[in-house]
Amino acid sequence: MKMSRMFMPTLKEVPSDAEITSHQLMLRAGLIKKMSSGVYNQLPMGIRVFNKIQNIIREELNAKGCQEILCAGIIPSELWEESGRWTAMGEEMFRLKDRNQRDYCLGPTHEEVFTDIVRQEVTSYKQLPMNLYQIQVKYRDERRPRFGVMRTKTFTMKDAYSFDIDEAGLDKSYQDMYEAYTNIFNRCGLDHSPVQADSGAIGGSSSAEFMVKSEVGEDDVVFCSGCDYAANMEKAESVKYEAFKEEMKEIKEVSTPDVHTIEELEAFFKLHAGRFAKTLIYDADGKSVAVVVRGDRDVNETKVANAIGSVVEFELANEAMVQAATNAEIGFAGPIGVKTDYLFVDEEVAAQNNMIVGANKTGYHIENVNHGRDFEGVVGDFRNVNEGDKCPKCESALEIARGVEVGHIFKLGTKYSESMGANYIDKDGKSKPIIMGCYGIGVERTAAAVIEQHNDENGIIWPLSVAPYQVAVVPVNMKKEEHTEAAEKIYNELQAMGVEVLLDDRNERVGFKFKDLDLIGIPMRITVGKDIVDGKVEFKLRDQEEKELIGLDEIKSKIEAEFVKNNVKLG
Amino acid sequence: MKMSRMFMPTLKEVPSDAEITSHQLMLRAGLIKKMSSGVYNQLPMGIRVFNKIQNIIREELNAKGCQEILCAGIIPSELWEESGRWTAMGEEMFRLKDRNQRDYCLGPTHEEVFTDIVRQEVTSYKQLPMNLYQIQVKYRDERRPRFGVMRTKTFTMKDAYSFDIDEAGLDKSYQDMYEAYTNIFNRCGLDHSPVQADSGAIGGSSSAEFMVKSEVGEDDVVFCSGCDYAANMEKAESVKYEAFKEEMKEIKEVSTPDVHTIEELEAFFKLHAGRFAKTLIYDADGKSVAVVVRGDRDVNETKVANAIGSVVEFELANEAMVQAATNAEIGFAGPIGVKTDYLFVDEEVAAQNNMIVGANKTGYHIENVNHGRDFEGVVGDFRNVNEGDKCPKCESALEIARGVEVGHIFKLGTKYSESMGANYIDKDGKSKPIIMGCYGIGVERTAAAVIEQHNDENGIIWPLSVAPYQVAVVPVNMKKEEHTEAAEKIYNELQAMGVEVLLDDRNERVGFKFKDLDLIGIPMRITVGKDIVDGKVEFKLRDQEEKELIGLDEIKSKIEAEFVKNNVKLG
Repeated sequence: MKMSRMFMPTLKEVPSDAEITSHQLMLRAGLIKKMSSGVYNQLPMGIRVFNKIQNIIREELNAKGCQEILCAGIIPSELWEESGRWTAMGEEMFRLKDRNQRDYCLGPTHEEVFTDIVRQEVTSYKQLPMNLYQIQVKYRDERRPRFGVMRTKTFTMKDAYSFDIDEAGLDKSYQDMYEAYTNIFNRCGLDHSPVQADSGAIGGSSSAEFMVKSEVGEDDVVFCSGCDYAANMEKAESVKYEAFKEEMKEIKEVSTPDVHTIEELEAFFKLHAGRFAKTLIYDADGKSVAVVVRGDRDVNETKVANAIGSVVEFELANEAMVQAATNAEIGFAGPIGVKTDYLFVDEEVAAQNNMIVGANKTGYHIENVNHGRDFEGVVGDFRNVNEGDKCPKCESALEIARGVEVGHIFKLGTKYSESMGANYIDKDGKSKPIIMGCYGIGVERTAAAVIEQHNDENGIIWPLSVAPYQVAVVPVNMKKEEHTEAAEKIYNELQAMGVEVLLDDRNERVGFKFKDLDLIGIPMRITVGKDIVDGKVEFKLRDQEEKELIGLDEIKSKIEAEFVKNNVKLG
Repeated sequence: MKMSRMFMPTLKEVPSDAEITSHQLMLRAGLIKKMSSGVYNQLPMGIRVFNKIQNIIREELNAKGCQEILCAGIIPSELWEESGRWTAMGEEMFRLKDRNQRDYCLGPTHEEVFTDIVRQEVTSYKQLPMNLYQIQVKYRDERRPRFGVMRTKTFTMKDAYSFDIDEAGLDKSYQDMYEAYTNIFNRCGLDHSPVQADSGAIGGSSSAEFMVKSEVGEDDVVFCSGCDYAANMEKAESVKYEAFKEEMKEIKEVSTPDVHTIEELEAFFKLHAGRFAKTLIYDADGKSVAVVVRGDRDVNETKVANAIGSVVEFELANEAMVQAATNAEIGFAGPIGVKTDYLFVDEEVAAQNNMIVGANKTGYHIENVNHGRDFEGVVGDFRNVNEGDKCPKCESALEIARGVEVGHIFKLGTKYSESMGANYIDKDGKSKPIIMGCYGIGVERTAAAVIEQHNDENGIIWPLSVAPYQVAVVPVNMKKEEHTEAAEKIYNELQAMGVEVLLDDRNERVGFKFKDLDLIGIPMRITVGKDIVDGKVEFKLRDQEEKELIGLDEIKSKIEAEFVKNNVKLG
């Protein structure tokens, strides 16, 4: 492609509404363009990268015997009613009607559709296992779209679904996808880690997220410093803190005016935060929920929502709901006499004695409170891991890092096959539900994660595998025919070789061109300048400082060597 | 791919709800699966064909310097309000709201979005010309989805938009697309014709449809038997019939009980149909419209709607509207005293004397009616061409054939750039609206048209260029190791060559396999049977009866020769 004709609206300035590096660079390098909140158009440089990631995904999945299909993006409500998710998906699902007032959604995920396809065609164990996937635009009505293509209302997703006759088959399918995902993200140049994860609204038993460590990640990921334990915060566990134990004392109400936070309580009572229990009030689809954890812990909302069951919207209660539950201002909620639909007590709280809790009375706390004696709730693990907690596997210190989730693999089991009647006849003639797995990769998000890990102050540094173009040829002086003609000749030769090459034939100074090419991150640059009279050009890699003067006859081998080094197929 | 593991649900029976060959064969060969009315999922065999068509489109457009982008599928209403189409698109556009009650549509076409992208980035004539395209899922709430993927609520479309500084530039862009489309449809193996077309709701001045002649086509296409004139019926013109001329006589009311149709009138008055004028009443967005054409003509609704201007819904009026306009039962409408918002008179009617028309009185007609003397309406060409009419260019006889529209190219002009303010600064520093063109191809419909033209009683006969797989290797007897091992070896060798090859390793009789492979239309078949002991296999082309015994060492060259013959790149 000749850059003089290329639609590549690069920006000199950092866009003011772009907070994170990948978002800034995607906008600055002209990869994407915002249309409205959480809705982006993909420009030529962007779609080339996204298509390359898609092709890597295709190759790795096909190598595992997966088969590509493509489902319609609008899905009739009937399928979602069968699975029970027409309601469960809540506001995140876009809904619409056709001219006959029939209900559809814009597919936010496709378990129902794949299950429907398979139940219509698969009858016998002989037809299984099977793994079907699609690469498709998904729609989710995000409450807070942000970070460019990291969280949007519409994005491209590869979703795959496996169908097996038993758990052993599912284990194999899951393992295959685990390997395929590892290959995919390695080929994209991503330093990534698979971590244990919660299965969320999709349902099912076991799942792993492929996380790219990044300061801008929206997820907290817990890694063990001593073993391979890694889990999303939503799912992560740690060894319980040692419980404070002593004789139970009598409860005592204490006036604590203007004391609201745990820090204020620590100062007031001169006690460690672990001696307090804090009670938070949540709103779960209109039901009130009290959760009690130690003062040095945070509530893990996912664990609480899972304990309740199918919750669509789970959020901190508003003031009215808190007052109805506690009869007090916010800051004085406690477990004794709290009027909520649910009361959950973290096991660390249940294990210790004589805690200090809110009194459900504005300006008061209660000392010497004991679970079992003074109040009773459902006991379980409802807390977040803290940095430095002990690993549940090896007791080494846990670390917390931010991560971007680029892929997710789930063992669904029979959740969808049972509710939707997707059965097969086994060897003995018995009808059994098909065992399913599901597996997703966000395409644009993967590209954003690559940028987060591969950039410098000048712009993007694309790995060769996903670069929009692989080589740029730059004539130094557009007025010198010896520069422009030699450059065009090299450009034509590289194209004939199958290299994806840009010719920077823009009427601009060479410094301007270098800046643009660094910004858009083209891996190799060939500059045609004064040394062309000696048959030499400058060769430079984007990720290295050094420039090298090479002969025209060396260009081909130099470039081929980079393809070999990066394990990328040429042409 | 090994067929034992392939998800390819073929059907022996013709599905009862599939009326046309391509629909039947797409279902029978397992290319698509219906999810709901007008909504299809694409199965592995289907998506491979659709992807190949997409890649042919990409190659030909890229060769013309077009650049691929991808717009979001949900579009905020604001853009459509700017162009005035939020209302104009009517019920065909799917609309939805996000959680903040903001309005979006599912993009049925993308003029607004492309214009928006370009107006934000293009300021100078130096940035033009430019041609941007996308391959994307479109959504249209069709009133009557039918014929499989021919007319659906969701389908894949390549839409391209050109941006030029002047009409000469647009002519060049249009010509480039004309050439690209010709190449694309030729490569798909389609016998097609570009025909003049109406520009419809998209707007603009000049347009051509790429039509595939087919009995199942939804469009009537007018072709000249003597020259290259070809036009969609909506747009087609012909030389006017000779007008009946005589002295004007006095009008006379005639009782015509039980005479309603033109045939009945001809019999009753013993006159040729051309001596009658028939008056049809239409409903144009609630406004009543009377159209008068000769008795031997049909009304051309598109021409009438264009004469009114921006009409969303145009259909025959219901009985109530007819009675309000004519004060009579249906069958007796006439131009004299008709109470409609519009009255259009075909020029053939205006040109002749003493016509017989309905009396707007049940059971009566009027003789000797003359336009100008007895009634007055807007005169123009409001009629359809009849088979055998004279060509407007060369006066040879016109023929009418059914056609499937697979592509459409439009000269839009400044319709969108003016309404949306997409301007550029010209060489002299003046601001001018960008001149636009737009260009569409329906991907699945193209595949269906290929099937309509390439099939026999046994199934599809894919051209090599778009075949889901190019070669099938069939072991005759799955119990004979010499068959299965040789077949697998050939399969592996062909894969290594880059051939897209199926190994039919299913535990079925060879006749069953042949039937399936004929149905799904694989262009080349290699059968490994008893002659393998002499190092020979059977080679057969899907589109020919002959089978040939060839040596194992000839397989490669045989296949390569087919690729060369069909001008398809191997690997």
